Amino acid sequence: MPSRQGVLLGSRDIMTPYIEAFEQIAPHLRLAFPEQIADPEAVSFALAWDPDDEAFRRFTQLRLISSIAAGVNGILASRSLPQEVPLMRIAGESQALMMAGFVSWHVLWHHRRFGDYLARQRAACWQRQAKRAPDDIRIGLLGVGTMGTAVARALLALGYKVECHSRSGRSPLADMQCWQGGAGLAALAERSEILINLLPLTAETHNLLDAALFDRMPRGAALIHVGRGEQLVEADLLAALDSGQLSGASLDVFAVEPLPREHPFWRHDRIVVTPHDACDSTPSQVAREVATALRRLDAGQLPATLVDRQAGY
Amino acid sequence: MPSRQGVLLGSRDIMTPYIEAFEQIAPHLRLAFPEQIADPEAVSFALAWDPDDEAFRRFTQLRLISSIAAGVNGILASRSLPQEVPLMRIAGESQALMMAGFVSWHVLWHHRRFGDYLARQRAACWQRQAKRAPDDIRIGLLGVGTMGTAVARALLALGYKVECHSRSGRSPLADMQCWQGGAGLAALAERSEILINLLPLTAETHNLLDAALFDRMPRGAALIHVGRGEQLVEADLLAALDSGQLSGASLDVFAVEPLPREHPFWRHDRIVVTPHDACDSTPSQVAREVATALRRLDAGQLPATLVDRQAGY
Repeated sequence: MPSRQGVLLGSRDIMTPYIEAFEQIAPHLRLAFPEQIADPEAVSFALAWDPDDEAFRRFTQLRLISSIAAGVNGILASRSLPQEVPLMRIAGESQALMMAGFVSWHVLWHHRRFGDYLARQRAACWQRQAKRAPDDIRIGLLGVGTMGTAVARALLALGYKVECHSRSGRSPLADMQCWQGGAGLAALAERSEILINLLPLTAETHNLLDAALFDRMPRGAALIHVGRGEQLVEADLLAALDSGQLSGASLDVFAVEPLPREHPFWRHDRIVVTPHDACDSTPSQVAREVATALRRLDAGQLPATLVDRQAGY
Repeated sequence: MPSRQGVLLGSRDIMTPYIEAFEQIAPHLRLAFPEQIADPEAVSFALAWDPDDEAFRRFTQLRLISSIAAGVNGILASRSLPQEVPLMRIAGESQALMMAGFVSWHVLWHHRRFGDYLARQRAACWQRQAKRAPDDIRIGLLGVGTMGTAVARALLALGYKVECHSRSGRSPLADMQCWQGGAGLAALAERSEILINLLPLTAETHNLLDAALFDRMPRGAALIHVGRGEQLVEADLLAALDSGQLSGASLDVFAVEPLPREHPFWRHDRIVVTPHDACDSTPSQVAREVATALRRLDAGQLPATLVDRQAGY
């Protein structure tokens, strides 16, 4: 395979692991930081994460730019981003499976009340719990792209009743009902003891998770939120938990990240907070996907996960 | 359906819920405690859990004995157990799915280090974690009956690499390798970063989980133990955790239950203790399965979940 020089556009602590991953998985693709590169015109691809406004300026011969994750908003914000170079994001099956595991853990946390087990262990208290079978529990899944589909498959394998909502109303799985539109969202919320949000942030999904939605859910339902912070009306969630309308919430994304130390979510006993960490593309996955995309470009094809710059993802 | 008298052989607090469940689901099957039964020869079936040594003595006309759960070691230990009466255990799909969820939660707990997330939440500390993809993690599954098969399906749906060990060496799933015998167990342990024990308690599995096995596992591996307490050498587990050979353990079963308050497992920071609560057969499930088994006997067929007394489960 033709040897190629790539550049890492992002902070050293984030980007350094990619050097070793590429050496192992795609040794024909060399990676270096900008200051290590004598001849910027020899650089044919860039791996970027939150690049600064001037980051792309010196590199005039790029054939491919890749994010290291699913998000590309940081790259799209760079003023030196060349408009004509294919931009790709990482949205692989492995990453989707990590999301599936993360969400499944939280579904089980709420269904089986594992927090109560952990509290009783601290008290050395042996006490069994009443249990409901998973096929007695309805789960609503908002968003069924690559990640949502992997989440649905995992939850179905665990025996849960899963229905979904998507913009198209098309279900990715033959045996899973899919709802559509505002009325469909209302109907799904009414049926869902656990509601999972995986939607991308758009004008339509901004503040989607609010009191009106929570009030439709069965009393004592739980929310698992792994979309974007701006989709949740935080005060409405706290009120729903305080009134008992919701029994618990798992939050991985926040309007302000890192979540400020004084934020009430941290110390709420029915909220599990994680630091926007549901899933990562691994460096080796990025190496594989970038190598594949460069091979496709050589063969005259665009990357499979090309970003639609108009849509913004 | 012919009316039949059954006897409950076990403690009142455990057995009482079965009376109502049978009344609702199989009203032709009446249940009573031994002291309520005037004519023991009119009793044609027994529902048992940890019966004492004399429990079966008076009941000479039994056609069926059923456990109320998957385990039968307590019944097999009763000296009055008649040798010729069919003995069945409860092993339904719903129960298996509960086990699959329980085990999956613990697999994710160890793989994704959710304990670290919970600890950081208490400290209001926003810190992401390095992550490995599930298809990078090998899981070894000891025991692939109804429950083990459901566990395997769930873990495969979550993207893990799963291999198993069974007495027969036959895999229940086409794409899952199955090991057999002592050499197979050693080989599987060497490959397993997470080892799950679902085996029944027999002479062969007594003290199976010991230092020799832990030492074969990759350094930093985790143990999930949902079999029977007598299969674990407790001191060996504590030593393996102290030395770092094992990074953590999830224990649902113990040699002495309830686990005594002063036992070191309760307060070990790398052990999760649950009170033998991974899954339940519900009383209504037991009623359905016992009614079905009695119908099969009337038709000249053995129960579907007949216990092999030689094998011990």
